[in-house]
Amino acid sequence: MGRPSAPLLDTGRITTAALALVGDSGGFTIPLLAKKLGVSPSSLYNHVSGRDEIVELLRERAMSEVELPPHGLDWRETVAQIARAYRDSYARYPRLIPLLTEHAVNSAHAFGMYNALADALSEADFGPTDVLNIITVLDSFVLGSALDLAAPEAPWRPSVEVGTALRAALDTASSKASRSDEAFEYGLRALLAGFDPLLDR
Amino acid sequence: MGRPSAPLLDTGRITTAALALVGDSGGFTIPLLAKKLGVSPSSLYNHVSGRDEIVELLRERAMSEVELPPHGLDWRETVAQIARAYRDSYARYPRLIPLLTEHAVNSAHAFGMYNALADALSEADFGPTDVLNIITVLDSFVLGSALDLAAPEAPWRPSVEVGTALRAALDTASSKASRSDEAFEYGLRALLAGFDPLLDR
Repeated sequence: MGRPSAPLLDTGRITTAALALVGDSGGFTIPLLAKKLGVSPSSLYNHVSGRDEIVELLRERAMSEVELPPHGLDWRETVAQIARAYRDSYARYPRLIPLLTEHAVNSAHAFGMYNALADALSEADFGPTDVLNIITVLDSFVLGSALDLAAPEAPWRPSVEVGTALRAALDTASSKASRSDEAFEYGLRALLAGFDPLLDR
Repeated sequence: MGRPSAPLLDTGRITTAALALVGDSGGFTIPLLAKKLGVSPSSLYNHVSGRDEIVELLRERAMSEVELPPHGLDWRETVAQIARAYRDSYARYPRLIPLLTEHAVNSAHAFGMYNALADALSEADFGPTDVLNIITVLDSFVLGSALDLAAPEAPWRPSVEVGTALRAALDTASSKASRSDEAFEYGLRALLAGFDPLLDR
């Protein structure tokens, strides 16, 4: 009986290792990734075409908990369900977010989500310009909210003087998870209410 | 005449060097920062108390282009002016964003901005719970929009099949700057319209 062999290199292991590097340092390089996996850079290229493909694998991992709602719901409900799942999924990997936004999206999983949003908005009679704007606004709000969800329990810790109005507002923050969740739902309601009158009726 | 001496270490140079490290790799460490500045870590500690203070210096640099509007404007105008300046200022340093959100805010400059927002909202008769929620929502939307502004010209580049509705939406995107700017203004209008009915009247 020989020793167990080293686990085979596959895209799952490559993604996990790249994610660990991003979590530690905010980025990854092919040489560092190969070193972490104990392989040569050329072995990596047997599994992925290069850095861009690894970024898309990271995007798929970040989105892995996004489940699409059934077709045919009210557009507000479709948008809300996707936004919630998208935020929760990305909040697991906050340092990955700027790496993903600096690369053009090119993954089937991501386009599955954007298609579902575009279909729901279009069926509700939003025009194509509104659809692009709404998707972009949701993307920005969700990614910013994922960063907020991953932020410290008390994201503001002033040693400087704060004014009366800000002090009263900060004092309403209770536990971290509920503060961030409450603000996210508040913003989602405001956006949905703000988009609504833009519908051609 | 001797050679020009090395520039003196000060917090400005420390901030610039840390910012360059974050831009290259997504993060910084004290040893790497000292190495980049050509000094020992202990020389750094003559100027800053540690990593947390450097993060606040980075936050002040990221916010350096945020100018506060004059007091007494309509709250919507105050919020819009601050949000625009905040997004433009942060879009210069996208990789800094998750580093800043993972540290509790403790800088006079940042609290100047939060105080101005809280004062304007409170004077418009939003209650303290609404003030905290609105500030959190704006923070999330602005930081996500700054990441979008720093994104590639065509942030979606599908090699996969996209549906009819998404294709029509993507085809409306013109040049990058205007796409991102237009979506930001669209989201800002939607948020302001969505917040408005929450006012106690």
